[in-house]
Amino acid sequence: MPPSYANCTLAHRVSYGETDAMGVVYYAEYIHYFERARGELCRSRGYPYSRMEEAGYMLPVREAQCRYYSPARYDDLIKIHVQIDEIRKASIVFSYKIYDEADEKLLCTGMTHHAFVNKSGRPVAVPENIREIFSQAE
Amino acid sequence: MPPSYANCTLAHRVSYGETDAMGVVYYAEYIHYFERARGELCRSRGYPYSRMEEAGYMLPVREAQCRYYSPARYDDLIKIHVQIDEIRKASIVFSYKIYDEADEKLLCTGMTHHAFVNKSGRPVAVPENIREIFSQAE
Amino acid sequence: MPPSYANCTLAHRVSYGETDAMGVVYYAEYIHYFERARGELCRSRGYPYSRMEEAGYMLPVREAQCRYYSPARYDDLIKIHVQIDEIRKASIVFSYKIYDEADEKLLCTGMTHHAFVNKSGRPVAVPENIREIFSQAE
Amino acid sequence: MPPSYANCTLAHRVSYGETDAMGVVYYAEYIHYFERARGELCRSRGYPYSRMEEAGYMLPVREAQCRYYSPARYDDLIKIHVQIDEIRKASIVFSYKIYDEADEKLLCTGMTHHAFVNKSGRPVAVPENIREIFSQAE
Repeated sequence: MPPSYANCTLAHRVSYGETDAMGVVYYAEYIHYFERARGELCRSRGYPYSRMEEAGYMLPVREAQCRYYSPARYDDLIKIHVQIDEIRKASIVFSYKIYDEADEKLLCTGMTHHAFVNKSGRPVAVPENIREIFSQAE
Repeated sequence: MPPSYANCTLAHRVSYGETDAMGVVYYAEYIHYFERARGELCRSRGYPYSRMEEAGYMLPVREAQCRYYSPARYDDLIKIHVQIDEIRKASIVFSYKIYDEADEKLLCTGMTHHAFVNKSGRPVAVPENIREIFSQAE
Repeated sequence: MPPSYANCTLAHRVSYGETDAMGVVYYAEYIHYFERARGELCRSRGYPYSRMEEAGYMLPVREAQCRYYSPARYDDLIKIHVQIDEIRKASIVFSYKIYDEADEKLLCTGMTHHAFVNKSGRPVAVPENIREIFSQAE
Repeated sequence: MPPSYANCTLAHRVSYGETDAMGVVYYAEYIHYFERARGELCRSRGYPYSRMEEAGYMLPVREAQCRYYSPARYDDLIKIHVQIDEIRKASIVFSYKIYDEADEKLLCTGMTHHAFVNKSGRPVAVPENIREIFSQAE
């Protein structure tokens, strides 16, 4: 049975500054949303990303991808669901689904792939304790 | 006795995208925070800003001001307090105080002054019902 | 021989507000850069995107993708190269390459796929005149 | 005769990501524009802000203020004029005027006040060489 990893959902209220002249959320903002949810996931496992940086690790992004299904608008309450799809030797893959809170409509899906590096930017193996922290408790 | 107006406080978690290379929240982001709190104030009075636009009104900003006392950092939980200072004939003045949630440290204060205009951008008198909505219930 | 489409390169100076606490450009900003170059491409063909909206068309994004190779930093001068890869029946695919201006280092590559829709959001065939405007002059 | 300080003007093309659902540039973006022009001013004097940080100095903002006269829109070419108003013992005051490039219409004015601090965040006297760099050559 493949390992199962942590996931979490974050609620977010769309601000005016996140919209654009089309009257909907600007496309790069969803990438911000992914980061908000990723941070919440770390925090929810008792290991905030800020602590990871204090421990000497960073997770620079190697790839980001987003598919847009339906636009979010000002004042919408959205739910950003994030899960860890895979913990490789020296990298982590997250995937995302964003829904409208009111009607559960799917707004977008996405993926980010992060290297696991030390302070000098060199890739390092994901430490065992972090691997455990991000594994799903049964 | 002068009229007393509505106020409200919004909690916000600082995201990585809001920080800059100094390691702290970028100075323009606080102006975004003001807007988030303003929106929450309207919503908390049962009159979201989106509904104001549907009713044919907009509140374009005429002036914004911010004083910075102490920086917020990634992952900080902050509290954005907003209150209406004054409702003039055709404009509204909001003021803001942002605190660190953990130690109540004052991070910044600010002010925004908004015109009250109709769809064609012409200043109009603040309607009585909106004046009432934003007046503080005792 | 397959049709060949327009391309263009835009220079951009990295601002402080585009960086994050890692000391490099925040990952979502590259998606903004893509949009800047896309706009410049339209403008350079004598058909600014604003005019496209005036003509009743919009190009909402359906998918965006970005691979990050090397980080840009504050004050870097970067070059954003954009080209149209494909004009389908009712959608357009753009691809991007971002370089450091000083040493020609590749910073990131990306792709965006846009639907071609009318004011009511309904997909429409890319009009012949727009197809021609975006075809490469020999 | 009071000392006269450096000034400079930066051209900037409004991107879609800078607009909001009102169809105009979002109010916090002007604060970003101020920073772009400030950076250009330093660069134009041969002393980029990045070099200032390398030399161990930072200019965190103490206050920012912006008055909005007329909105900028997508694709507008704007001119951001910045000048140093005052170099105090341990702080610097910049002022800004943003114009539409096409018709010279004034869009907004603003001010930022920056402390001059060392790496540990302690205010320090503005060094003589920096004072000279920012003084206007006759």
